[in-house]
Amino acid sequence: MTQEALQQIDALQTRYIAALDSKDMAAWLDTFASDGSYVCIANENEESGLPLALMMDDCHERLEDRVTYVTKVWAGTFEDYQTRHFVQRIACTPKGGDLYETVSNFTVFYTDSAGNTGTLVCGRYVDQIVLGSGGAKLKSRRAVMDTNVAPRYIVYPI
Amino acid sequence: MTQEALQQIDALQTRYIAALDSKDMAAWLDTFASDGSYVCIANENEESGLPLALMMDDCHERLEDRVTYVTKVWAGTFEDYQTRHFVQRIACTPKGGDLYETVSNFTVFYTDSAGNTGTLVCGRYVDQIVLGSGGAKLKSRRAVMDTNVAPRYIVYPI
Amino acid sequence: MTQEALQQIDALQTRYIAALDSKDMAAWLDTFASDGSYVCIANENEESGLPLALMMDDCHERLEDRVTYVTKVWAGTFEDYQTRHFVQRIACTPKGGDLYETVSNFTVFYTDSAGNTGTLVCGRYVDQIVLGSGGAKLKSRRAVMDTNVAPRYIVYPI
Repeated sequence: MTQEALQQIDALQTRYIAALDSKDMAAWLDTFASDGSYVCIANENEESGLPLALMMDDCHERLEDRVTYVTKVWAGTFEDYQTRHFVQRIACTPKGGDLYETVSNFTVFYTDSAGNTGTLVCGRYVDQIVLGSGGAKLKSRRAVMDTNVAPRYIVYPI
Repeated sequence: MTQEALQQIDALQTRYIAALDSKDMAAWLDTFASDGSYVCIANENEESGLPLALMMDDCHERLEDRVTYVTKVWAGTFEDYQTRHFVQRIACTPKGGDLYETVSNFTVFYTDSAGNTGTLVCGRYVDQIVLGSGGAKLKSRRAVMDTNVAPRYIVYPI
Repeated sequence: MTQEALQQIDALQTRYIAALDSKDMAAWLDTFASDGSYVCIANENEESGLPLALMMDDCHERLEDRVTYVTKVWAGTFEDYQTRHFVQRIACTPKGGDLYETVSNFTVFYTDSAGNTGTLVCGRYVDQIVLGSGGAKLKSRRAVMDTNVAPRYIVYPI
């Protein structure tokens, strides 16, 4: 694995959390490949093999739908909050060609409208990442949350 | 942008948090350029364009004053606490010559004198960083806190 | 200090937290050199020069014992929890030959069996790390916790 591949992968991780922490859902969508998918699931369900997930965007159209929901359908109907993500790469395995599988720890802090900060969720990202001329993209992201009972309801992707 | 420039920038970020977490205010001051400035402000005020800040050291003399306040004037008059900083670079943009603008997520944990740990604040650093023969220095740091209501009063810079 | 040395050191830090967060105690043990040792101590005791530690595995046999305790002796007798570690290197000093001394900030989050997440402890790792053909290994790790009163009892190493 080259350093350049790792740099592209880390830059993708950075773009992802920067997009969410600035509530730029178009930039979030742009971190996914055209055949990309996103699942956000509690570890309890993941380990039991139960498919019940908090979010399951299993094709690009559903990723696009999520952007529409957050920015248009739900806008103004939920109590807003500010997220702050941290991510640390734990493993990276070449899977042949331009494909890599990575695992990263994450924590998401949140600040409510009154200005109080707490831990929203923590867990691990399990990713299939594809490198390309336009930078790395997520072919598949599973956000597996240790947390099963978040201190507030979750609107934005993790 | 060269890898060497990024390494200098990341080393500066590391020196900064190492200085604060070991309460070495002289080392904190040394992370700033001779024309450096520091502002610590709540995001609520930052986004509203309100200049009200928790700390506003708009010239090097005020940075020096802050060191004096923390180490001499206030010393022994406040309930002390131990910080632990984490920082993750989100963006880095060359601004010409030796100047770079970076954005980094930060979290600061604190432990009180009874030994209990909590989250003090989280947010983002928006920095103007200048490279030089003595390593990178902060020309300007804005610590923009998501947190508006910290669980205790803040004595040390963030 | 070469970039390759730093990469080996960072890879060791990653293997360490990946081992603990997946409860793989054999992999945890494998991060230590054959003459490795591990101490987990509150900063209050560390700074006072008091040797009282939460864990003191001062030889490889005691490291092996800890693995046995966690995986066999204590198994099923404690309320389990899931950890999630974050680590950030603060300093790295060559000590001659293949030996390096590093300091890193750490935070450990935990999720209880009901699915609630909180901060378990934060602090700093003070390490003696030895490079070798099989990757970097811990010759000595001191996990110095800022936290003196964790929100639950600690079973797994930090």
